Parts: sequence; C-alpha cells; structure tokens
Amino acid sequence: MEEKVVKIGVIGCGTVGFNFIKSFTRKKREIEKKTGVKFIIKRVYDRDEKKIKPFPEISGNSVKEIIEDPEIDIVVELIGGIHPAYEFIVKSIKNGKSVITANKALLSEKGKEIFNLAVKNKVYVGYEASVAGAIPVIKTLKESFVGNKIIKMLGILNGTTNFILSQMFKYGINFSDALKKAQKLGYAEADPTLDIAGMDTAHKLSILSTLAFNKPVSWKDIYVEGIDKIESTDIKYAYDFGYRIKLLAIAKISSNFLELRVHPALLPSNHLLSSVEGVYNGIFIEGDMIGNSLLYGEGAGGKAAASSVISDVVEIGKKILQKEYISPPFYENKKLTIKNMDKISIRYYFRFTALDKPGVLAKISKILGKNNISISSVIQKQENPQKAVPIVMLTHKAEEKNVKKAIKEIDNLDVIKKPTIIIRVEE
Amino acid sequence: MEEKVVKIGVIGCGTVGFNFIKSFTRKKREIEKKTGVKFIIKRVYDRDEKKIKPFPEISGNSVKEIIEDPEIDIVVELIGGIHPAYEFIVKSIKNGKSVITANKALLSEKGKEIFNLAVKNKVYVGYEASVAGAIPVIKTLKESFVGNKIIKMLGILNGTTNFILSQMFKYGINFSDALKKAQKLGYAEADPTLDIAGMDTAHKLSILSTLAFNKPVSWKDIYVEGIDKIESTDIKYAYDFGYRIKLLAIAKISSNFLELRVHPALLPSNHLLSSVEGVYNGIFIEGDMIGNSLLYGEGAGGKAAASSVISDVVEIGKKILQKEYISPPFYENKKLTIKNMDKISIRYYFRFTALDKPGVLAKISKILGKNNISISSVIQKQENPQKAVPIVMLTHKAEEKNVKKAIKEIDNLDVIKKPTIIIRVEE
Repeated sequence: MEEKVVKIGVIGCGTVGFNFIKSFTRKKREIEKKTGVKFIIKRVYDRDEKKIKPFPEISGNSVKEIIEDPEIDIVVELIGGIHPAYEFIVKSIKNGKSVITANKALLSEKGKEIFNLAVKNKVYVGYEASVAGAIPVIKTLKESFVGNKIIKMLGILNGTTNFILSQMFKYGINFSDALKKAQKLGYAEADPTLDIAGMDTAHKLSILSTLAFNKPVSWKDIYVEGIDKIESTDIKYAYDFGYRIKLLAIAKISSNFLELRVHPALLPSNHLLSSVEGVYNGIFIEGDMIGNSLLYGEGAGGKAAASSVISDVVEIGKKILQKEYISPPFYENKKLTIKNMDKISIRYYFRFTALDKPGVLAKISKILGKNNISISSVIQKQENPQKAVPIVMLTHKAEEKNVKKAIKEIDNLDVIKKPTIIIRVEE
Repeated sequence: MEEKVVKIGVIGCGTVGFNFIKSFTRKKREIEKKTGVKFIIKRVYDRDEKKIKPFPEISGNSVKEIIEDPEIDIVVELIGGIHPAYEFIVKSIKNGKSVITANKALLSEKGKEIFNLAVKNKVYVGYEASVAGAIPVIKTLKESFVGNKIIKMLGILNGTTNFILSQMFKYGINFSDALKKAQKLGYAEADPTLDIAGMDTAHKLSILSTLAFNKPVSWKDIYVEGIDKIESTDIKYAYDFGYRIKLLAIAKISSNFLELRVHPALLPSNHLLSSVEGVYNGIFIEGDMIGNSLLYGEGAGGKAAASSVISDVVEIGKKILQKEYISPPFYENKKLTIKNMDKISIRYYFRFTALDKPGVLAKISKILGKNNISISSVIQKQENPQKAVPIVMLTHKAEEKNVKKAIKEIDNLDVIKKPTIIIRVEE
C-alpha cells in the first residue's frame, strides 16, 4: 500500500502562519517519527506577496488553488476577521477539507454553523490556537476533562490587558501610560479597542463555554466590560484588601443557569490566577471529578500559536488516515439557560468620591442597606475636608440589580462628586 | 451496519477503580453523546470480593475472563505494583486488547517493553492517570506540545511530600509531626517510604521524561533524594532568602545531555510552582515554541485519577473504532546522554552547625574557595558562644563534585558539630 501523505494548504502568512510553516518544515522528520504520519505543506497564500517569499519551495499564491486542489487535506486559515475567512472555511469544508483556524472572532460568531457543516461533510475543525495561544485548553476541555461536569471557568485570556494591569500594579502608573508602553513593546495594537474593551476575551470565552457546557455561546450572550475605567488607585486599594484586579472571563454553572461575563474583577491575591502576570494567560477550571485545575502559558505570539496549530495538524492528520469518520453531531445541552446579569449575586468593590463631611458614610450606608447590600470592609481616610475624598468599600454578596439601583441613588446625592467606581469581586 | 460498542474490563476496584466505574456508568449517556462512541463495562475484578459488590450489573470476579474474553477491547489495570500487574498487561496486549493503566511503578520499570509490545500487537496503551492524577500532562506532552523541543520540566508530582512540606512551612512544625498529620488525614500511607524517599516522584519523572525527550528513562536513571532530612529551620532560612523548599522532579536538556533528578530544592517564592500547596501537583514545562507553561491540579484521589482514566477510555475507544492502526514504533533519541550527577552545576544552600568562635567562617570560606565555590549570601546570627550555631549560606553556581568534596572537608573540621545540610537550588 502506498503511504498516504497528508497535504496542507496555508491561508495567511503573518506571524502565526510564518512561524507555523517555518517550525513545521524544520521539524517535519522528527514529528513524523513521533507520530507515524507523513505531511507536506503543498500550498500557501498571503494577500501580501512578500510574506510568502521565505518559502519558495511551497506553491503560492492562490486561495482558489488551496480551496479547490483535491489533493489538499487540511486548510489552515490564519488570516483572522470574519470575511473572507468565513467564506474560505465554508468552501474548504464543502470541498471535503478539514480546517484548522486561530480565528476566535469567526468561531465566536459562526462556530455552531461551522462545526455542524464539518460533521455534515465528514471533516474536522481544529481550533486550539484560537484561545490562549500555546495553552492546550481546547484539547483539555474536549478530551482530558470529557468525564467532568464543568462547574466553573475563570480565565485571563488576553495578554494585552493583563500586561497593562500588571504594569499599573507594578509601577503605579495610570491606564494610558501602561497602554502606551504596551503599544511600544508590540503587546497592543495601534487600535487596541478589541482587547481593551474585553471583546477579544469574550470571543475566547464563548468558544470555551460552548465546549465546556455543550451550549452554543456567542459573544453576544456574554456581559462585557473593559478595563479602561480602572485607575491605579483602585489597584492599590484592592491590594490593601488582599486582592488583585484582573480582566476575567467568568463562566459558572448553578442549577440550570449559566453565568457568562467578562469584566475587571478583584481576585484574591493568593489565587493562582493572580500570579499570572504580563502577557501570559491562565485558565482555572473546576470540574466535578478533577476539582480545581489551572493551565498557564503564553497566550499570544507567533511561536506559541504555531505550536497549537502543529498540534491540530498532527491530530487531524491522524484522523484523515483513518477509514471511519467519528465526530459526533454537535451535542447541545438544552436545559441550560443563560443567567440575566441583573440576577447575579456576588461581592462588590465600590469607590465613592464624596465630600469629607460628617454623615456622608451614614447616607451611603443607609441607601445600601435599603437595597439589601451589606458592607464587609471600608477604608475612609481623613484627608482634606475642603475636597472630595475616596471612600472605598467591599460588600458582602449582593444582587447586581440592587447594586445598580443603590449606586444610581447614591450618585445623585449632592455630597457625591464623581460617578462611583464599581468593580465586581470574584473569589 | 451494526454499531460497535467498545467493551471494557476493569482489574482492580480500589478507590480509582470504584470511582471510574461509578462515574463512567453514571455519565455514560452524556459521554456517548459528546464523543460519538458507545461503551460498556462488561467485566470487573478485585481480589477482595467485597469491592465489586457495588456493581452487581457487571460480570465479576475473574481476571482470566477479562484477559481472555474476545469481546473485551480495553483492559483497565488499576491494581498497582509490578506483579501480577505486569503479567496481566502483557497477556491482555498479546490477546489484542488495549490497556489503560495508572501504574507508575510498572511503567517506570517496564514501560519501553510494554509500549513496544503494544505496537507489535497493534493496540494502544493509555496512562494519563499514572502521573499527576487529573492533570492532563501525558496528553499535553504527547499531543499538544508535539511540535516542541522540550527544554526543561520541573514538577511537584507527589501530593504526600508536598502536603508535608506545606505544613512545615505554614505551621513551623517538624517533619515527623507533619508526616503524622498527613497519615491522619489519609494523605500518607502507613508505610510512606515510597513517597518520602522520592521514589514515587522518580517513577513519574521517568514516564514524563521518556515522553518529553523520546529517550527511554527508568527510575534507575534518576538521582533521587527524599525529604526526610529537611528541617523546619531550613524552610525558614530559605524563606528569608526568598525561596520555598519543594520536592522537585527536574529534567533539563543542555546540548546532548539530559539532567534527571528528584530532590528537595529551594525554588524562588515567586515561581508559580511555589504556589502549589498541599496535596496539589504542578508541572512546569519549557519548550522551544511554547516558552513557559504550567499545568496544575489534583495529583491524587480516586475521582481525579478516574477522570484521567475516562479520558483514556474515550480516546482509545475512538481509536478502536477506526480501521487503521496508527501508532509509531517507539522513537528513540539516541544522541541524548544522561548527565552524571557529579557534573551538574547549580546553586546550593548550606547549613553548617559550627561553634561560635572567631575564624570559623574564614575556615569554611577558605575550603569553599579552594573548591571553586563562591558564596552569594550568608546568615550568621550571634547566639550562644558556648553552643554550636547555624551558619546558613547560598552559593553561586558550583559543580556537585566540588560541593561534595568541600563539604566532606568542612565536616571534618573540629569546629563543625553536625553534618552540614546541603539543599540544591532551582531557579
């Protein structure tokens, strides 16, 4: 029997594409020895002709040829964005090709459709590189923890925002200076909105949640708040209370409700995720059999993502050599309902900016009490009676709806001089 | 076509076996929906008849029937120890059955033989549960990091010893009290030698190293030292220097040499592994593409290990339904040589017990200097001139051979009153 060679086409030769082709080509012999599968990268495309120049031995530069070449088994899509990546992937699948993608925005928007289309066409979709770079969280959720009911996931899934918050913590600098530093070092894009506003994290959380809870989740199902309102003063107060501030992706199950949110949160300093600094990512997963677990690693960067692409290539390559197609139709947990944000019940951090007058704390506390919010700790420093001063507070568990109502009322008091800062707490 | 059902036989119904059968049976429908594979646990055996009583619907209690039943596809071996587990596994493989095992001692001793026998008989061996309980380190090394050259692994792989060291750190208690507490809580066996002496960790490191470096490693290739000589005073001094003391499994590659050792080590307090407390396990892995990564979770316990067994059952079940057998013959990196312990070059912690006389430090330093060992920090407290006092020291990098020679000479000085405590440092 002639030995089958798995043939690959790569669409997009940016940082990840370049690193994938370079490393995979260089390590091909060893990977083949380790896995028993033979591979070749047959075609490559980038809209920028220069990008494919380092690989003259690979045929370029036509998307059409990659998608229509009957010899190509796997299409690796690394261009990002919804269009035309979506069209490329759909056509590839319809032409009987398996697909590997790092495209979190696309999967968050069209994941269910793409997965179902793949099953219909008996091909595979690999997307390890779409979440948390080198960290094998997709495989772990899908395969290693397959016997578990996942109860909770907490993730630091965006290196840019984690770098910014780490810098603000370490050097006491403000948000915009930390952002500038991140941009200078190449950790933030010129337009950093997608990262800063939490949207990139929401894309990733939707992919993880779909997998963990067997419930199709889009980023639209997730409550999202960015880090741009976090001040270094809040980071300091949080630290005094024994917490760090991190941009967290949070997914939790209680009875048949699924809580999904992305926002800055106070996390206990001794929580393992609090040690995830700079551009690193970390995902904490709680399951009914595994208990608590954590995966940590490089969340971005060409090499890290390329490592995950190689892992998908090998896995799908092996599957392609099989005669039987085994991939279950997308299984959906119909019982699970996404919880309304107003109904969540957690602890809160408030920073009021109030005139330093007698009775101010009494007024605030009264409104909180009326709304079923009880105070756990307060920091109020005697400062300048002429000026507004911060009153910082941690609450016991309270309902989000009540918090919104109470803070609205408090912010209308004439002793309150600025909108109150509200940060949720995650234990 | 009639749908194939993957049939399983379980040998050993202790904590892991019980939890595996219980959870897998209870979750079978959902796992089948998620994976597209149908399973049944057909037979179970335990030498203690009582242990299989909770599962009257499963046929028991004969090993012979499990190994010889032509319908059984997968034999799950959970009895531990070398014999008769070895014979059961070999016979099962020869009868064309895939095997799943949590038996680290056996794999460390006979791994290469078992893996090769499996390839010869075209069956699979799953062993995720053999190292670090619920942590998916086997799958991660084998599949997720397949594109990486692994450069370094540091592991806390034994919950018993990590619990003891955590207790000594937290409460300042001595080794034997911490051990008693561990035994009382069921975290240490009545005879805890295998754990305390580092042998269990060495078994696990040999399995990880074989996988990470494509080099058959037995526990006999590993330098092993236990934690029984660690005193709480060393834990305190280490902390003052900015370090924690952990029992580490260490594997490192430099040029074509592989360093393999298990011993208590000073690890910087801000290293992520230093936050692995109690019975938890953690594995730090450095690769040429992934950079630094960490996997953390429950290292022991019936449910955690059973979670890994389920993961193996599903994976091997899928492979059994495939028509093609793809598992490469064991690939061996012949270039790699195991480094002689005398040749390693690292930093050291010394605690001398010396008379508090003028010139003592000079004598010690002179011998160290003569042996190319330079001092990085010293703590010497003025105490009782009548009594022996501790002199605690961190060195710069030095060769193990020179350290042994120097300490031998120092311990012969008449001002030295007790054998010097030597603990290696890992950065």
